[in-house]
Amino acid sequence: MPRKPHAIELTQVVEWNSGRIERKQDYLAAEEPLEIRIGGHPLTVAMRTPGQDSELAAGFLFTEGLISTSDDILKLTPAEELTGGDPRTAVRGNSILVELAATASFDPEKMRRNFFAASSCGICGKASIDAIRSRTLRAPNPDFRVDPELLTRVPDSVRAAQAIFGRTGGLHAAALIDQNGNVLVLREDIGRHNAVDKVIGWALLKNCVPLHETILFVSGRGGFEIVQKAIAAGVSVVACVSAPSSLAVQLARELQLTLVGFLRDRRFVIYAGEDRVVRAVPRLASEG
Amino acid sequence: MPRKPHAIELTQVVEWNSGRIERKQDYLAAEEPLEIRIGGHPLTVAMRTPGQDSELAAGFLFTEGLISTSDDILKLTPAEELTGGDPRTAVRGNSILVELAATASFDPEKMRRNFFAASSCGICGKASIDAIRSRTLRAPNPDFRVDPELLTRVPDSVRAAQAIFGRTGGLHAAALIDQNGNVLVLREDIGRHNAVDKVIGWALLKNCVPLHETILFVSGRGGFEIVQKAIAAGVSVVACVSAPSSLAVQLARELQLTLVGFLRDRRFVIYAGEDRVVRAVPRLASEG
Repeated sequence: MPRKPHAIELTQVVEWNSGRIERKQDYLAAEEPLEIRIGGHPLTVAMRTPGQDSELAAGFLFTEGLISTSDDILKLTPAEELTGGDPRTAVRGNSILVELAATASFDPEKMRRNFFAASSCGICGKASIDAIRSRTLRAPNPDFRVDPELLTRVPDSVRAAQAIFGRTGGLHAAALIDQNGNVLVLREDIGRHNAVDKVIGWALLKNCVPLHETILFVSGRGGFEIVQKAIAAGVSVVACVSAPSSLAVQLARELQLTLVGFLRDRRFVIYAGEDRVVRAVPRLASEG
Repeated sequence: MPRKPHAIELTQVVEWNSGRIERKQDYLAAEEPLEIRIGGHPLTVAMRTPGQDSELAAGFLFTEGLISTSDDILKLTPAEELTGGDPRTAVRGNSILVELAATASFDPEKMRRNFFAASSCGICGKASIDAIRSRTLRAPNPDFRVDPELLTRVPDSVRAAQAIFGRTGGLHAAALIDQNGNVLVLREDIGRHNAVDKVIGWALLKNCVPLHETILFVSGRGGFEIVQKAIAAGVSVVACVSAPSSLAVQLARELQLTLVGFLRDRRFVIYAGEDRVVRAVPRLASEG
């Protein structure tokens, strides 16, 4: 029987607490590599928490602009179903094969070059943003509105849905929230980007993209790549528990995405696209 | 005058607090791409917080195994000194040129292939760990000991040194701590890996590697790559404020690194290498 990767693992640890020392059992968030293959060609390896690997692969390909619709994917096959008797891969299940439709023309060598080139051409933030803009992006929905009171309840809703994994303390959460505050899907992963790719991959495979009436909630910080992935999926509002980065704010402002940070304890900060959340607020004199 | 990238940026935001809405000024952690070039060839781009770019480049090359000593580096030159009148790069300072010694034979095309191959061969955690072991690694110092009381004081010492940047709430910190609990160097970055590369790069450029009598402190979680970088630098003890991952624990145990997590409020958990911190603790019956 192939060993199936688990999302959490139990292990023995030693706790030191004010001088008292005790050996105990503790849960760890699992981190294992997932190789994504297109046809027979390895594309990339994500260090991820096992689980929902098909969503991760689909979401990654989509948010990175390698495919544009779910129709581009013919089949997603975990590796243990492929390898037959090969114990090396069969044991692990840490590889996933993507079969693309003929419409999704894909040259792995070109892709390899582009991956490299894409990261190398971004000499400045401006250039990176230009690269994002040049992709086929969904403009965030200008008519979508979010009730601020509803927004403040999102972290609690996510935490309730998160009960199983919370015990490791080592996982990032991402969730899609509808206009009524309901958690549509929640995914947890050792990597924040993976958690976001998993929820967007879930939506893509359910043909729910673009996510024009949806809030993307992220448990940690909001960096450039989170905003980029949200925009790729047509999300209009991104809400993070912690701080966004300067480049995330810049991209959100340019592309009119609503970006909320420090969402906790009936308080939050709006960094971009405030009109979707609050009425007109007078500007400070210092910025004219 | 070239614009120099800053580590923090001031911007206007809207704060919502229990229904009260206010426009105010807020600090953002800066995130900008740094292109690392070897000779004339682009190697990689790190999304990083500007500052200590030479340390970041040196630390990255070293912890990823592309160079083995500081002697392999002849010169580190920020891009604005190179480009003369070219406003596109001169304005930004987001590129750094590394000149390697002849002893450090370096083939950028091979490196490109290896970067790809390295990430693609790690079908399983075991394989990744084998890949790490096959590199020239420093065995952690078996004789290094850390006083647990000293360990509990590290977060406060780091926080005191961190006063300037703490205000953005968006930066990870990494620090090297000596056997007496002194902060040797502290670096903050939007990326945890970058913060670690910066402190190790600092040590490399000061010829203080291997760091056999040093604790590496990380403000967040401890993943596989943090432990891998620590081992590359000969660090014996890694202490994180949050949880480590399963693969980080596995690697630390195999290579006899001490890995401490949840270091806060006079409490911590030892996941590997407990002998450096506490005397013999009886094992639980459940693991024999």
